[in-house]
Amino acid sequence: MRAFQPIIENLSATGRLVLVCEHASNAFPAPWGDLGLSPEQRAAHIAWDPGALDVARGLMHRLDAVLIHAPATRLIYDLNRAPDMKGAMPARSEIHDIPGNATITAQDRLARTEALYLPWANGLHNLIARRIALGLRPVIVTIHSFTPIFHGRPRAVEFGVIHDADAALAVAINDAARRLTRLNAQLNAPYSAADDVTHTLRLHATPYGLPNAMLEIRNDLIADSAAADRMAETLAPVINMGLTEIQKQAKAS
Amino acid sequence: MRAFQPIIENLSATGRLVLVCEHASNAFPAPWGDLGLSPEQRAAHIAWDPGALDVARGLMHRLDAVLIHAPATRLIYDLNRAPDMKGAMPARSEIHDIPGNATITAQDRLARTEALYLPWANGLHNLIARRIALGLRPVIVTIHSFTPIFHGRPRAVEFGVIHDADAALAVAINDAARRLTRLNAQLNAPYSAADDVTHTLRLHATPYGLPNAMLEIRNDLIADSAAADRMAETLAPVINMGLTEIQKQAKAS
Repeated sequence: MRAFQPIIENLSATGRLVLVCEHASNAFPAPWGDLGLSPEQRAAHIAWDPGALDVARGLMHRLDAVLIHAPATRLIYDLNRAPDMKGAMPARSEIHDIPGNATITAQDRLARTEALYLPWANGLHNLIARRIALGLRPVIVTIHSFTPIFHGRPRAVEFGVIHDADAALAVAINDAARRLTRLNAQLNAPYSAADDVTHTLRLHATPYGLPNAMLEIRNDLIADSAAADRMAETLAPVINMGLTEIQKQAKAS
Repeated sequence: MRAFQPIIENLSATGRLVLVCEHASNAFPAPWGDLGLSPEQRAAHIAWDPGALDVARGLMHRLDAVLIHAPATRLIYDLNRAPDMKGAMPARSEIHDIPGNATITAQDRLARTEALYLPWANGLHNLIARRIALGLRPVIVTIHSFTPIFHGRPRAVEFGVIHDADAALAVAINDAARRLTRLNAQLNAPYSAADDVTHTLRLHATPYGLPNAMLEIRNDLIADSAAADRMAETLAPVINMGLTEIQKQAKAS
């Protein structure tokens, strides 16, 4: 089967920042197709993180970062999950059944892993390891969006900053957001590492000791490309201040 | 430049064990060649782990394991090191200068990373992730050997079992070695994770929560292939008892 390669933009960037957007796409390519979902379902947050790619691109331009993003919907394979996690090819997402994922054999699971997860994981790892070899130790920041209403309940948080084993960058970005913006910023909201949402950080940042954080933006604030670009304009100095803070801490230690 | 692929044996194995031998080879392929070393130096432990591959093969047959091993000497690229670690392409190893590594530019470092480290890391990751997708959660055991005399001092330890973040399998194997063999077995000897020797475990086992351990055998005990096979015969039940113990613990928790 065809391998679906990750999409990489601004590869010649000289900054340390590597932006990762695992849920950038709501493409439903063959041979899986629409998985039995309606057009409305395929446009909804169950299929992707609406607005996340636009914010990531806005940050890429402002911060001289490299960007890597997904070529297909997370409902075929969620690239932020290991192949045996329930969420990798979910039979149900929030209140929606996913008919095309109702019965997945071990061979189906292997085929999706080979078509989507392996090219993604290798592509991201190669990108990171090459920059490490050149002496440009990357900083890994993943960009996500979340739905303002989940299982019928509104969420107050607007900007969530999630960490895994190394909290330094997430804490610094969250502090910077509270100082520089009026966003309702919260650490480890609306999810945390305990919800198994930090696979990318664990696989690609922690083993190399790279600073890392997962950013979550409420998707009603980035509902069109103009709003997403305004959010990137708001968050670029926030991320910069976070990076400056962890560089200070590294020098002091 | 040519990519040097890892060598995989017994890929159709149905056991959970994945044996990894990062220092299996003392081949010095072009374009790097002998790095200015004598034949004696190229045969010595600075270039590879003598006997480790023979032990690993003996274990592979006895335990129905898959085996992955290195295609070239660790002095060109040490596959158990990240690209920016000092030991990845060392200018000096124990008491030996490595002339071909005396002055390595960032571009040289990138070229070796692309030729050796990336194919290895991708090959091992693909092997592991495919088995995870099929529901066969692997157990990762790396096989090494160490020199009986280091910087002029003899080492009493004969069998070292080293762990990283998850100690369970290493503790179980060390306990089994003490019960089943007369080997001088020690935990975290002659090295430990603090010496940065557990890169493979950190990159390939920890992110997936896979049981893992690094085994070190004193190389005077495996000086020829018959001795290495006797060591495999000794260690196969030790590893089996360790695997049984962690399965018990997993069921009890």
